[in-house]
Amino acid sequence: MTSIDNKAFSRRDLLALVGKAAGGAAMYQAMTSLGFAAESGYTGPPKLDGARRGASVLILGAGLAGMVAALELRRAGYKVQILEYSGRAGGRCWTLRGGDVFAEMGGAVQRCEFAKGEYLNPGPWRIPYHHHAVLDYCKRLGVALEPFVQVNYNALVHSAKAYGGKPQRYRHVQSDFQGYVAELLGKAATQGNLDTALTREDKEKLLEGLRKWGALDAQMRYRESALTSDRRGYETDPGGGLMPLAKPSRPLELGDLLQSGLWRYIASGQEYEFQSTLFQPVGGMDMIAQAFQREVGSLIRYHAKVTKIAQDERGVTVTYTDDAHGGAVTQARADWCLCTIPLSVLSQLDVQVGDAMQQAINAVPYDASIKIGLQFKRRFWEEDEAIYGGISYTDLPITRISYPSTRYGAKGKSVLLGAYAFGPNAYEFTAMTPQERVRRAVEQGSQLHPQYAREFDNGIAVGWHRVPWSQGCYGLWTDESREKHYRNLCQIDGRIALAGEHASYIPAWQEGALLSALDAIERLHARAVS
Amino acid sequence: MTSIDNKAFSRRDLLALVGKAAGGAAMYQAMTSLGFAAESGYTGPPKLDGARRGASVLILGAGLAGMVAALELRRAGYKVQILEYSGRAGGRCWTLRGGDVFAEMGGAVQRCEFAKGEYLNPGPWRIPYHHHAVLDYCKRLGVALEPFVQVNYNALVHSAKAYGGKPQRYRHVQSDFQGYVAELLGKAATQGNLDTALTREDKEKLLEGLRKWGALDAQMRYRESALTSDRRGYETDPGGGLMPLAKPSRPLELGDLLQSGLWRYIASGQEYEFQSTLFQPVGGMDMIAQAFQREVGSLIRYHAKVTKIAQDERGVTVTYTDDAHGGAVTQARADWCLCTIPLSVLSQLDVQVGDAMQQAINAVPYDASIKIGLQFKRRFWEEDEAIYGGISYTDLPITRISYPSTRYGAKGKSVLLGAYAFGPNAYEFTAMTPQERVRRAVEQGSQLHPQYAREFDNGIAVGWHRVPWSQGCYGLWTDESREKHYRNLCQIDGRIALAGEHASYIPAWQEGALLSALDAIERLHARAVS
Repeated sequence: MTSIDNKAFSRRDLLALVGKAAGGAAMYQAMTSLGFAAESGYTGPPKLDGARRGASVLILGAGLAGMVAALELRRAGYKVQILEYSGRAGGRCWTLRGGDVFAEMGGAVQRCEFAKGEYLNPGPWRIPYHHHAVLDYCKRLGVALEPFVQVNYNALVHSAKAYGGKPQRYRHVQSDFQGYVAELLGKAATQGNLDTALTREDKEKLLEGLRKWGALDAQMRYRESALTSDRRGYETDPGGGLMPLAKPSRPLELGDLLQSGLWRYIASGQEYEFQSTLFQPVGGMDMIAQAFQREVGSLIRYHAKVTKIAQDERGVTVTYTDDAHGGAVTQARADWCLCTIPLSVLSQLDVQVGDAMQQAINAVPYDASIKIGLQFKRRFWEEDEAIYGGISYTDLPITRISYPSTRYGAKGKSVLLGAYAFGPNAYEFTAMTPQERVRRAVEQGSQLHPQYAREFDNGIAVGWHRVPWSQGCYGLWTDESREKHYRNLCQIDGRIALAGEHASYIPAWQEGALLSALDAIERLHARAVS
Repeated sequence: MTSIDNKAFSRRDLLALVGKAAGGAAMYQAMTSLGFAAESGYTGPPKLDGARRGASVLILGAGLAGMVAALELRRAGYKVQILEYSGRAGGRCWTLRGGDVFAEMGGAVQRCEFAKGEYLNPGPWRIPYHHHAVLDYCKRLGVALEPFVQVNYNALVHSAKAYGGKPQRYRHVQSDFQGYVAELLGKAATQGNLDTALTREDKEKLLEGLRKWGALDAQMRYRESALTSDRRGYETDPGGGLMPLAKPSRPLELGDLLQSGLWRYIASGQEYEFQSTLFQPVGGMDMIAQAFQREVGSLIRYHAKVTKIAQDERGVTVTYTDDAHGGAVTQARADWCLCTIPLSVLSQLDVQVGDAMQQAINAVPYDASIKIGLQFKRRFWEEDEAIYGGISYTDLPITRISYPSTRYGAKGKSVLLGAYAFGPNAYEFTAMTPQERVRRAVEQGSQLHPQYAREFDNGIAVGWHRVPWSQGCYGLWTDESREKHYRNLCQIDGRIALAGEHASYIPAWQEGALLSALDAIERLHARAVS
């Protein structure tokens, strides 16, 4: 049993005792005051007591996993060094700003031309409220957060194959789909078709609930009215004085709506990871990387490209080319090693671990993805269309447009996320030159926003499978590969432990990187002091 | 036809011409670039050209209606003066902070004891994305906005009569209600019960939509699983490394959920006025009042209590007691008068208008409402429960608890909205002393948050029907009273026009106050120059 299991168990014991002694309400109180109701395994930084004097840990990779491990291991008394492939700390916690240069595999080089204060987060861009570790470290390290707007009722949902290609408002599709579902179910219930599934009392409550939730009229119909316009919005909004009277809007026809497929976009904000309240760091995601770097930056050796990881019964030896010093082949040695190198890269290196871990390292392909940031001359989405933050969806290869959740109402140039695609769509984009990718994103986005052509300024496109140090976006586990390889990937092999989002059940999220690192160092520490 | 009607008409003509000449896409482009797609009657400050030299307007009330009118009329060249009952500009656009003193009708005096930076907005507290006039003036006057979080999936919904009084998570009720609705409708559709209402093709799309939207499994069931936990959250969240495996959460039983009535709270964020993206001014709603005051403050005479409004064919004479000068009875005169005094007060004054307007003034009762701000020693809702902003709902008289949508993660004392009740609940609260109101709010809130008792610091309670200068919260129109009196209220009577939220179809909202004032001064100006 791991130490974290023990900790959770003893806390549960305590709660059971409280519950027995004082009843349910006191137990609930105790639970909430212990932060337990949050359903998270994270309860604060690990307590690593009793480290051996002089014990050392070599960390590979200065992403969030590597840096949080460095922070906590150093605090525990370990001698820590980090080797980082690139010239920057943060890994996929990365923000591109004006002046930044990005060279991708294949040789294309892009220089970011964004205006001051504008940015693109090529990697993570959102922090869910239940990502307790990320939020806690933001608080501890002084990273200011602001809400990330995921759902915007005034944003667009679009299919090139529906409504003649005319984008629809999210609020229209959301309200109409829900309303028609309520009407149809109400009809079925009223006609007695649910009588085997529901008691009479439950049916009455269901009808009452459907009416309210679906904005149905007294006859349980979803129809053009002030009632439905108070959900989907008006044709002409209510005004003041003797302005023109409000005019209700007309719901979409049920058949058209069903055939449009646009309903597929309306539940995204209900998913656990995208539910409000979501956050982003003020100024760009790499504010988190910078905050960690302020703490452990002195431990990082940049431009150190690991080629080999060897171990014996006394320690770990890592060979790397030191590109900061002419590519000299160099070695670093420590008692223990925490390796956070993405499996896409690690699987290409010479790593001295047992078969089980090696097979696990080889078992996880990486997803392809692309993000394209587009700078426009003005915030036309706000100024012309009252879209403040949030996401528009489309079945075009760009898949979505995300508007900035910051500096609402600001004048001047502004950057939005003009494409965020995975898999085949991502490969299709990266088959083009960066300039062509940007051009294509502008062309597709114009189908949602005709202002695109006139207002476009510049853009940048990051395909993760072209990023040299990650060669993919995140580890693509399946139920089968988890079953076979996950524990083998995470078990400490001799003196080597792995961490990163790939060594977590929260793939592609920073929380996965932090939790895997914290869990790994707790186990490394337990072994080191045993 | 009013000037604003003319303007809208000519713009529509223009759009029709564009449409004929260039087809739909060009028309859509023209529409969006003219801001027309926003469905709003507001298209920017009115253009009031050709005011007569020396013409004057007396404005009664320095709320947002009065101040925006003063700003635009002065810009147009009018001589403007504002008489204000209280010692403060803003009216119901009002923020209470530490040190503020509030004396209510009946004599109770409360001193606000909030910590620095903390506040309560007793009146308006949210700005919808489609309140174009408020947002535009915020932009013009430099009022910084931040998102107001209405829906928080991790907040609570509570009924004293359901689940033994134990609060439920919003995400549980939202996900389960929607999931069961999808399951039930799927069942009805599969059993052929919708075959008269739907074509076979539509039924297939409906089933596909229900599965995705309701998080149903392949058998169209809503069941305990990773799938449903990706909506409602997990019993144990997914973790990193070898942390305990994720444990799905178990949905509420359908019968319990229906009988609980908690489904009544889950659609609130889908209402047009509460849809994301909502805003609030950074630092308190009265940042808007202060911004207007910076512009027109020099025109305001405070502590001027109007008792009589008389008019003749050449102008308007207003009698008031000048409480800034010992209560001297004083008169002010101007060519025109814009009166923004709430009808609850105006109906008690001697006003020389025709029968139609007088009857309209008398026809609108005002709603009672109360808000109670509670300061706690720390943000336990964030620290213990990961509730960042948003609203918890209850069927207790406090009706809801709204957590601050600002300074997330801040240390130290923090104020939340501990009660916001209308009608009978509001009267019940104000029948008590302010101290007792606060005590009662703490007691009720404890049923949602056991931390209340230990963390409570101080509170303040504002009942709008006890506020001397408004004597109610907002004008309570019915369809019948609108039909009979609304136009008579808004028509200019001789040289007097009325404005305020009561003279709008957006009651209780600042947008109603602004639009009614802008519409009224356009018509006053048209008459003044004719």
